[in-house]
Amino acid sequence: MAHHKDQRFIIGVDLGGTNIVVGAMPEDGSTRYALRSQPTMAELGAEAVVARIVQMVQDVMTVTMAETGAKREAFVGVGVGAPGPIDRENGVVTIAPNLGWKDFPLRDRIAAGVGLPTTLDNDANCATLGEAWIGAGRGGRAVVGMTIGTGIGGGLVVDGHIWHGASDVAGEIGHTTIDMHGRRCKCGNYGCLEAYASGTNIAERARERLATDGESALRRMVGGKLEQITAQTVYEAARAGDEIALDVVKETAAFLGAGIANLLNTFNPDVVVIAGGVTQAGDALFEPLRAEARRRAFKPAFDACRIVPGELGGAAGVVGAVATFAQQHLAKA
Amino acid sequence: MAHHKDQRFIIGVDLGGTNIVVGAMPEDGSTRYALRSQPTMAELGAEAVVARIVQMVQDVMTVTMAETGAKREAFVGVGVGAPGPIDRENGVVTIAPNLGWKDFPLRDRIAAGVGLPTTLDNDANCATLGEAWIGAGRGGRAVVGMTIGTGIGGGLVVDGHIWHGASDVAGEIGHTTIDMHGRRCKCGNYGCLEAYASGTNIAERARERLATDGESALRRMVGGKLEQITAQTVYEAARAGDEIALDVVKETAAFLGAGIANLLNTFNPDVVVIAGGVTQAGDALFEPLRAEARRRAFKPAFDACRIVPGELGGAAGVVGAVATFAQQHLAKA
Repeated sequence: MAHHKDQRFIIGVDLGGTNIVVGAMPEDGSTRYALRSQPTMAELGAEAVVARIVQMVQDVMTVTMAETGAKREAFVGVGVGAPGPIDRENGVVTIAPNLGWKDFPLRDRIAAGVGLPTTLDNDANCATLGEAWIGAGRGGRAVVGMTIGTGIGGGLVVDGHIWHGASDVAGEIGHTTIDMHGRRCKCGNYGCLEAYASGTNIAERARERLATDGESALRRMVGGKLEQITAQTVYEAARAGDEIALDVVKETAAFLGAGIANLLNTFNPDVVVIAGGVTQAGDALFEPLRAEARRRAFKPAFDACRIVPGELGGAAGVVGAVATFAQQHLAKA
Repeated sequence: MAHHKDQRFIIGVDLGGTNIVVGAMPEDGSTRYALRSQPTMAELGAEAVVARIVQMVQDVMTVTMAETGAKREAFVGVGVGAPGPIDRENGVVTIAPNLGWKDFPLRDRIAAGVGLPTTLDNDANCATLGEAWIGAGRGGRAVVGMTIGTGIGGGLVVDGHIWHGASDVAGEIGHTTIDMHGRRCKCGNYGCLEAYASGTNIAERARERLATDGESALRRMVGGKLEQITAQTVYEAARAGDEIALDVVKETAAFLGAGIANLLNTFNPDVVVIAGGVTQAGDALFEPLRAEARRRAFKPAFDACRIVPGELGGAAGVVGAVATFAQQHLAKA
């Protein structure tokens, strides 16, 4: 697609514990270019991760220039989303257990490597902003985003901007208590939503069920090696109609519905966007989830809110990272 | 206190299930005049309540004029806070179980009776805005308010304005789930914060404890008639050092701490203001409450937030109702 001569481009980087995703977009969000994904390989150390990100950004710029005819000067900056908590002002990843990082100055290391202004925000915030900007949350004034992966990330977007709160912690929906005497969570707390409905816990609950229950496709899918069951195994078995897998998805939906109802009654959003592997279960997830939220939330709060799957898939974080850069650096995004 | 010649005054009305409180303030919030409280007597019907409110507003204006030398023309309007949910746009109290009202056009009935422009908002929203404006939440950018009475009301204030959400339900903190398999709540849900920490439930838990436990000042305070124990009885016994009462307050603090931690991790406020009878317990409430919130919330979220008792007492709702009117009708409040 040919680009407008004065169009400016921004590169978005979504750094996760498993993969790094990079892509480029014009500032108006109209198109996505050259989306690339590579394994993070955090075990090689932070400098190796930075080098890989810088190389990917260069590649994405080269490919985008070839595809659009844009010059290098058209690229105005890099937006980065990284696992939180982060210190936005200083561009530092405060703690990232999945990367093994503590107080790492990611923003400035990337800016130095690429030679462009760079911004840093939390990855789940970026994914929510991406969906709110051009995805499933389009048109919403108050958008809640949740990404269910190894953990549960979340974000709040108000009037098109990430709500960061007083100390950049806002949106940590995975770490809200739904059962105060419940399961221990990795965060040290008891009864967090994440301890029930994350991918890790979905697999764990499936294994717990199989320890007592009998027949299931799940058992066959891992050749009887229950420890090999992952959340993905459960989603696939559910799609194939396996009853135990469907039950685990239904339980997951109830947990998520309770967590979402808490947000409906406090934040009263117009859209809740749910992303991540579990959405592969489709209606098997969304129908009981909406039913649980309806049961628990006030009627006007439930009625005012769409609860929908994300539309941007693995690109949401990149899109949102582009938007955060645009909002911070460009006159009018 | 003499008033500035051009100073404009606003009357605030706080309508509760038990009492009506009315007062007047200049638009800059500098002083409060002629605060009056009368029983609501909802059993006499909505029209009788409106007539009493109109009479109280007239009295407050008369007294304020006498105290300040202001003329009747200096009074520009009436702000009203009423039990929610309400329809703000149409000025209608949608459902108020404590008043026995359904779809009552309170705003227009008061406006007609007083002859001044009138605004309507939820009472707990008003109380939070009052504390954020000139009370314990002063200076906070994101303020959460909770009022613990018969039920638990709540509100969110962002940058000095009530956050209403998509359908005027925002801030219903009392109806967030802290134990999804827990106590049934009056709202029909299970495990709501209100079902554990409201005044009603505080009295109920004290009675439950006394059914099995032995000696307590509580038993003597009601002459052995346990059904006469109210939340107030518990607060008084706690202040007198009664162990069972102190235990009930401590449990209450843990429930409130869990509910507040959910808000710290999602909304990440700089201030949480807690009001209502239970704050009479002082440190016996706030110390375990803060400890529970610290245990459950992310450190930067807890560290960024003051959790404090309200400063305005029974006037918070009136002050906030004045502020909502000022924000909606005056050029610059």
